[in-house]
Amino acid sequence: MLPESVNNLISEFSKLPGIGPKSASRLVFYLLSKSVDDVADLGRAVLDLKKNLRFCDECFNISEEKKCKICQSARRDRTKIMVVSAPLDIVAMEKTEYNGLYFVLGGVISPIDGVGPENLRIDQLLERIKEDTDMKELILATNPSLEGEATAMYIAKSISNLKSPRKLPPDGGAIRGRQISKLPKITRIARGLPVGGDLEYADEETLSQAVDGRKEY
Amino acid sequence: MLPESVNNLISEFSKLPGIGPKSASRLVFYLLSKSVDDVADLGRAVLDLKKNLRFCDECFNISEEKKCKICQSARRDRTKIMVVSAPLDIVAMEKTEYNGLYFVLGGVISPIDGVGPENLRIDQLLERIKEDTDMKELILATNPSLEGEATAMYIAKSISNLKSPRKLPPDGGAIRGRQISKLPKITRIARGLPVGGDLEYADEETLSQAVDGRKEY
Repeated sequence: MLPESVNNLISEFSKLPGIGPKSASRLVFYLLSKSVDDVADLGRAVLDLKKNLRFCDECFNISEEKKCKICQSARRDRTKIMVVSAPLDIVAMEKTEYNGLYFVLGGVISPIDGVGPENLRIDQLLERIKEDTDMKELILATNPSLEGEATAMYIAKSISNLKSPRKLPPDGGAIRGRQISKLPKITRIARGLPVGGDLEYADEETLSQAVDGRKEY
Repeated sequence: MLPESVNNLISEFSKLPGIGPKSASRLVFYLLSKSVDDVADLGRAVLDLKKNLRFCDECFNISEEKKCKICQSARRDRTKIMVVSAPLDIVAMEKTEYNGLYFVLGGVISPIDGVGPENLRIDQLLERIKEDTDMKELILATNPSLEGEATAMYIAKSISNLKSPRKLPPDGGAIRGRQISKLPKITRIARGLPVGGDLEYADEETLSQAVDGRKEY
């Protein structure tokens, strides 16, 4: 019995995570009570969302340019790289004192969801480690969940494999621009976060403590 | 540190009721993970929402035509009119057995929000009562909250005032097309709904019982 445009938007809102049909109706009727301009602002913001958006060439954060604002910044500590599963984790982490760079994996290893290491940017991360000789520390900041821990462990192991003799390049002592003896320190954020929790919902204090208390793998 | 289009949509989503900055970020990053087409569907649905939408001339429900689908329908019981505060209440009520017509007040009397009877469609409702001689029953279905009860009471009183001698028109026995002795029965939905609750979130059974158990004012 509702006009089509109303039903249509209710159905579109219902597709969003955490929004059921009742919340969707409520949002739509709220918008109906607003001015045409206010509604148009929201509509255009949605349509413009993906315009000019791409992944940063260096850290795979979302970006408007080839390099994201964080990678471009001269004020960041380039010796630290923090590995996170998604761009939203960067938003959470940026509220802490952390001032290094990031690397976005694009997910975590989760066999149940059909996500294996080959679906993540682990090869690109290893490449970056070989080439980025500024990097002194790699902080593994995947969620403290089963999948996040497994992913962190997998990455730590892949990096230590770089040192193993069978992987040694012909010159025997260097991989790409980096001496093997100078591989970055690998750390894991502290379990200040409750195990099984979700990084993006943690409060800033807990996140800060997790960064401060990171320990070597 | 986020691209402008991302910040912009987070800020637009945050304006919606029940969506804080964290939920807004989560929605935006969810959309970032969807295809350009999916995002465009949502954006267009928002932009199209208010296109061709107006209020029904008879019941003030939202409508694409002069008369809404409910008022146009030949299968509705035209002897019953249900007074609700907002179009969303009609959506909830349409899930019950109720088969009469509606009248949307456009809110409830709420001095604290600066809403008085003159800001609602109470005059239009009284006009409708005078002219619509099919109407046998007027069901007051404002929320069972303080404001909803006060509004229902105000309406009931305004209708009984139509009968008072000082309001009698010169011919003494009729107001517009209707004999005063034939004013519609005024009923109030039963307190099957918890007092202080919100009509649009009630379950269908409670709503049905509230309609069935309505009692005369």
